[in-house]
Amino acid sequence: MKHIAFIGLGNMGGPMAANLVKAGHRVTGFDLSQTSREEAKAAGVTIAESAIDAVKDAEIVVTMLPAGKHVRAVWGELVPAMKKGTLLVDCSTVDVESARAVHALAERAGLAALDAPVSGGTGGAKGATLTFMVGGTDAAFAAGKPILEAMGKKIVHCGGAGAGQAAKICNNMILGISMVAVSEAFVLAEKLGLSHQALYDVASTSSGQCWSLTSYCPVPGPVPASPANNAYKPGFAANLMLKDMKLSQEAAAAAGANTPLGAAATQLYSLLAAWGQGGQDFSGVINLLRGKEGE
Amino acid sequence: MKHIAFIGLGNMGGPMAANLVKAGHRVTGFDLSQTSREEAKAAGVTIAESAIDAVKDAEIVVTMLPAGKHVRAVWGELVPAMKKGTLLVDCSTVDVESARAVHALAERAGLAALDAPVSGGTGGAKGATLTFMVGGTDAAFAAGKPILEAMGKKIVHCGGAGAGQAAKICNNMILGISMVAVSEAFVLAEKLGLSHQALYDVASTSSGQCWSLTSYCPVPGPVPASPANNAYKPGFAANLMLKDMKLSQEAAAAAGANTPLGAAATQLYSLLAAWGQGGQDFSGVINLLRGKEGE
Amino acid sequence: MKHIAFIGLGNMGGPMAANLVKAGHRVTGFDLSQTSREEAKAAGVTIAESAIDAVKDAEIVVTMLPAGKHVRAVWGELVPAMKKGTLLVDCSTVDVESARAVHALAERAGLAALDAPVSGGTGGAKGATLTFMVGGTDAAFAAGKPILEAMGKKIVHCGGAGAGQAAKICNNMILGISMVAVSEAFVLAEKLGLSHQALYDVASTSSGQCWSLTSYCPVPGPVPASPANNAYKPGFAANLMLKDMKLSQEAAAAAGANTPLGAAATQLYSLLAAWGQGGQDFSGVINLLRGKEGE
Amino acid sequence: MKHIAFIGLGNMGGPMAANLVKAGHRVTGFDLSQTSREEAKAAGVTIAESAIDAVKDAEIVVTMLPAGKHVRAVWGELVPAMKKGTLLVDCSTVDVESARAVHALAERAGLAALDAPVSGGTGGAKGATLTFMVGGTDAAFAAGKPILEAMGKKIVHCGGAGAGQAAKICNNMILGISMVAVSEAFVLAEKLGLSHQALYDVASTSSGQCWSLTSYCPVPGPVPASPANNAYKPGFAANLMLKDMKLSQEAAAAAGANTPLGAAATQLYSLLAAWGQGGQDFSGVINLLRGKEGE
Repeated sequence: MKHIAFIGLGNMGGPMAANLVKAGHRVTGFDLSQTSREEAKAAGVTIAESAIDAVKDAEIVVTMLPAGKHVRAVWGELVPAMKKGTLLVDCSTVDVESARAVHALAERAGLAALDAPVSGGTGGAKGATLTFMVGGTDAAFAAGKPILEAMGKKIVHCGGAGAGQAAKICNNMILGISMVAVSEAFVLAEKLGLSHQALYDVASTSSGQCWSLTSYCPVPGPVPASPANNAYKPGFAANLMLKDMKLSQEAAAAAGANTPLGAAATQLYSLLAAWGQGGQDFSGVINLLRGKEGE
Repeated sequence: MKHIAFIGLGNMGGPMAANLVKAGHRVTGFDLSQTSREEAKAAGVTIAESAIDAVKDAEIVVTMLPAGKHVRAVWGELVPAMKKGTLLVDCSTVDVESARAVHALAERAGLAALDAPVSGGTGGAKGATLTFMVGGTDAAFAAGKPILEAMGKKIVHCGGAGAGQAAKICNNMILGISMVAVSEAFVLAEKLGLSHQALYDVASTSSGQCWSLTSYCPVPGPVPASPANNAYKPGFAANLMLKDMKLSQEAAAAAGANTPLGAAATQLYSLLAAWGQGGQDFSGVINLLRGKEGE
Repeated sequence: MKHIAFIGLGNMGGPMAANLVKAGHRVTGFDLSQTSREEAKAAGVTIAESAIDAVKDAEIVVTMLPAGKHVRAVWGELVPAMKKGTLLVDCSTVDVESARAVHALAERAGLAALDAPVSGGTGGAKGATLTFMVGGTDAAFAAGKPILEAMGKKIVHCGGAGAGQAAKICNNMILGISMVAVSEAFVLAEKLGLSHQALYDVASTSSGQCWSLTSYCPVPGPVPASPANNAYKPGFAANLMLKDMKLSQEAAAAAGANTPLGAAATQLYSLLAAWGQGGQDFSGVINLLRGKEGE
Repeated sequence: MKHIAFIGLGNMGGPMAANLVKAGHRVTGFDLSQTSREEAKAAGVTIAESAIDAVKDAEIVVTMLPAGKHVRAVWGELVPAMKKGTLLVDCSTVDVESARAVHALAERAGLAALDAPVSGGTGGAKGATLTFMVGGTDAAFAAGKPILEAMGKKIVHCGGAGAGQAAKICNNMILGISMVAVSEAFVLAEKLGLSHQALYDVASTSSGQCWSLTSYCPVPGPVPASPANNAYKPGFAANLMLKDMKLSQEAAAAAGANTPLGAAATQLYSLLAAWGQGGQDFSGVINLLRGKEGE
């Protein structure tokens, strides 16, 4: 049983903190939103007066925040207030540069840290079935793993500081591109008079197979659980995919990596958002490609 | 036991014809290359004086030729020489328009026809493990299926005239794009200090999973059988992928389908070819993206 | 005074034929549309019973048709009916391959030929201010130039067979790309709070200067005559730009030229058309980029 | 006669400071490089012990630094040391966000500020023929204009804080794209057998005209002064164009602007750099497109 501070109790953080409580840990939390605080309290989280109060005696501090600037600000405020030996775990999806900056901040203060972004969405957060992509030292990973196992079912140690964020944006860049690829193929098939099912039957069992096709098919029918069968309700909203694609392009620009299709796909999700469709599932990009008939 | 004429006895056609012989059929063949004729003869194919002679008494005529213009020319010459009831099966990969044109030609002559392009490469041709994507009427498909089963292990009826070609270019367009996507992700990972294995472990088991990653990984290591472990020797040469990508873009332009990533990926394989690397495996596109370090 | 046959008397061909009449030539014409025939007749063109009748005694035959397949068909029908010494001039915008095919057809019949596509639109056709980009031998060019000068004000000999078509698609590919470039810059300026006029003042007098900016500005204001000031009424319709961009990409694919931005711009005009905006001026592509605010 | 402090005396800053001296101003300067300090001293610039010393009594402070982070750091250090009434002028090319951040920093200290990036290169810096794109209040612009006129021949007030940087990146994004467009057209022309001169003659006088073609032609011949006639020696190095293209894409991503061709062109300059050609002129991108024949 550990004393864990959890900062950021929103759609993702709230259920994750609740799973830590279920696992028998003592969880003290904070969030700027009163609703989030109340929901977390109802789930057994002790609500602190402030983030500073929440972390004071914690052995482990978990943060789940919207973007790199929030993580930099919150860690900048909290790290000086932490007792020696505290482990910091950031589960936010942020830019690699920010992830490394806060690792360095913790290191200077003599504290162990992990970047541990997740995939699996709100469903995975509630069901404790998230995948964690983790960056940090072996010692820090060993210390954090049991806690992460209370919130997810797959915990991958990807390497040193920032490796978790790196793995997530690389994976999601493949996802963002392959979803457009599959959508283009279905749109071309439609124009050539090839049925959705026929293309699915061929591609799903041959070299065109990919998660975007066989687990998240952008046309209704072949994969009953995919958002295409539910009017493209997310699922994973196009705006969130756009955020991750932008993170990948920002990292590529900074590191000097060539990602021509990553750049082109980012523009398509950006165009989808500009046309007011960013709230729909990212597989709705097929409707942008299809044009009027797709409306 | 059928009497089958086989026109085009090259790297693909030769072994395919040999498998028809093995299956107990009487196969009469022709090819413009003497070497191909001799190899086929050694495999039990009766060599005719000309394509015309080969098809004269055949019940089924199979063609395996380089491009649409050859198929149009050969069928144009042979169809008038065929007896009623002959079934034509074109296994070449050609443009959808040519496929439909030769279907129409056969129909006007009262002959049944199938477009039946393959995937699986020379290995699949030798081992009779090809996948056939077939377009044509139900009756023609029923008549041709037993013959195709002697040359492949998966026979998919995709729809009417041209549907086989349509399915192949849609599938290969996804493949061509996803290979670039995976390559971009590995190049970005390298620049971010994330190991190939770590990215593979994350993406192969989550939403970035695709055939290009898990069956044909463009970096050495994670998938021992992939060409990346063999100095990018094909496998499936970049020039052949470029040919298929161009067929997809030609079809998309003619049909009015939007395929922005298909177009961008086509340009990358074209650039790879312009730099003299078209003979290497298409997964070698990662070396184009990587730059000097990739040489 | 020459006897000229003119096949294709539509929005472009009609006024062009009328200008030949004005220049004192004897013009016999034909068009499949009765309206076009009547308008041409009113302008002094003698209407023939058929295309064949029109060309019988002509010294020069001019064709102005929608696409390569029409030119191949019409020349294929007419060439055998022409007397020795006739000069053929095709003013249509077609694919380079078709242009070369009909040059070869004329050559086999011992007839001189020119490909002479135009720029300048219906306004240029009426005002005889068209630019002609001409491909053919020096002798054919010398023979055709005086006739072209009656229909345009700039006649450029670009080289041998097909060079006129090649020059036009290369020029229009630059145009199609640069219009998108200028549109992206204005959209970015809007998001950064930079006024249209300020960007215009800087770019029009420095390294961003281009015809798309300074003669055909895609935002209202800086260039009063540009379609942006007239609700994006063409001008040069996006569908026509898309046709020319597709011709450039078809030629690039066939010739093995790398045109990544040409390919990307083609996709954007195709997307604009798919969303029902192909009838507006091609500078309306800025509204696609801008998104909802652009509606 | 003003007392001006000049921080950053490199290839651009050095000659600019020298021109201020020529114009009769008292200039105190600083640079981290001893060589730069000595060259500036030889040109009549008084060298201070440190940047702080240089600005102490200055009425105007000019900075010319490599990137946003340097400007943020230097202004952060110097602003507190400046006397009331000092005008700050940053001539560096930096990201819009940094430009606005340092404007805000100066404002909080009650100091007037301008962002004033330049175009014209080292030649323009030496010859005092630079173009300045200026952002800031009317009052600040009025105060800074006379100084800028001593270093350039065209001073454009583009708007408020950051507008100068915005104008520069929008202009250079058009430039970066149009150079690729012109290069693609020449490569396509080569493959179609159309001469460079013929394409130049057509496009330079019609709708394909742009600065990249008519002032900076990427093939040798048509424009004698262009780097293509000098083995692609810069001129404006591809690495610097890549830097500006990245600034435009960073601004577009932050502001939510769609720039698909800007993104695609950025990838091409990045690829050129990855292949070790970043030091050549940016018009050398044509050699990347051309492939082996271009070597």
